[in-house]
Amino acid sequence: MRHFEEELEKLNNHLLEMSGLVESSIHRSVNAVINRDEESAQVVFQNEARINQLEILVDEIAIGLLALQQPFAVDLRFITMAIKINNNLERMGDIAVNIAERAVSLLNQPQVMPHIDIPHIAALSEEMIRKSLDAFVRKDVELARNVLMSDDAVDNLRDSIYSSIIRFMEEDSHRVHQGLDYLFVARGLERLADHATNIAEDVLFYVQGIDVRHQRSVAR
Amino acid sequence: MRHFEEELEKLNNHLLEMSGLVESSIHRSVNAVINRDEESAQVVFQNEARINQLEILVDEIAIGLLALQQPFAVDLRFITMAIKINNNLERMGDIAVNIAERAVSLLNQPQVMPHIDIPHIAALSEEMIRKSLDAFVRKDVELARNVLMSDDAVDNLRDSIYSSIIRFMEEDSHRVHQGLDYLFVARGLERLADHATNIAEDVLFYVQGIDVRHQRSVAR
Repeated sequence: MRHFEEELEKLNNHLLEMSGLVESSIHRSVNAVINRDEESAQVVFQNEARINQLEILVDEIAIGLLALQQPFAVDLRFITMAIKINNNLERMGDIAVNIAERAVSLLNQPQVMPHIDIPHIAALSEEMIRKSLDAFVRKDVELARNVLMSDDAVDNLRDSIYSSIIRFMEEDSHRVHQGLDYLFVARGLERLADHATNIAEDVLFYVQGIDVRHQRSVAR
Repeated sequence: MRHFEEELEKLNNHLLEMSGLVESSIHRSVNAVINRDEESAQVVFQNEARINQLEILVDEIAIGLLALQQPFAVDLRFITMAIKINNNLERMGDIAVNIAERAVSLLNQPQVMPHIDIPHIAALSEEMIRKSLDAFVRKDVELARNVLMSDDAVDNLRDSIYSSIIRFMEEDSHRVHQGLDYLFVARGLERLADHATNIAEDVLFYVQGIDVRHQRSVAR
């Protein structure tokens, strides 16, 4: 059993490293957009390789653990949660790269429209992500439920940002290019919040053994 | 062992039903956009509930199989592939719903710009999806590799479609609203192709036991 415990610990540590990197990439991608900071964007591009490497490592260890021996129920749930969270984290890293790419595009244009509510949706999304990852680390059900409750707020904010951006673009067609960059940033932030929701659901599944997907009203 | 075999068969059958539904939803969402066909969009909205239900069933059976007994290596790989493909299929169903929503939005506007290359990228994506699902059903390595080779073509086509749409919008700001609908349709189709690529990679992992993610040059 000692090998099993060691591998489980390794799995956990890799996921923690990955969480830290993804959270940092997201924060830097947002900073690159809001503060027109190219260096922040470069760090995001650099993080990507390590995140992808960790994704493969986590999957290998998880499948190895499933193959090596019959895990107990609680370990089995942890391993399946690890496989799912791993997948979400890798996609979140990709979205951070997309946002950083938009930031670089925005840097190369004169600013022709305001940031709209991008800093606001960014703050909400980042908070959901931080909470969902904390909920994972601490196996905290309350925190995970708290994440699920924020998802609608982000969706509503995204809708209002879309409307504002479209209005800006319709008023002056010179703003189309820049408007699209902001639109994709807003969409990326909303998708990040969706991934935070997925992670929170996986944590609930792990801790409680209940499946709250597609029936969120139950979890509220 | 009889119960195990039965559950494995059930897992496979649910995934096949889900594949069929998702493929049909994607085809209908594209048809709704290109032929302005509202009924097609409605079918996509109706399929969503069953796809979500199947996702939960597949996960439950897969985790149950892992918990019940020590699966042999080949079964274990099949079960972990099932968990991953399941996840991809559910997201593909969501994207089909997004495309169908754009189709409904387009239906309610007079047509102010052409379809650009939407039918073309739709055909390419649908072909990749069909091949990746066939590769899964037949455990066909050649077909899976063939899918990986098409991904760049879809990305290039998406870039050229984006440029055309942006040009159309910049020429006349009355086209902004419609342009955005087309832009999100193109983006959805490109993301569907990405999911087809993920499925093809999972099939290769299952059949060959090698991990081709993030090192696609190896697989080519």
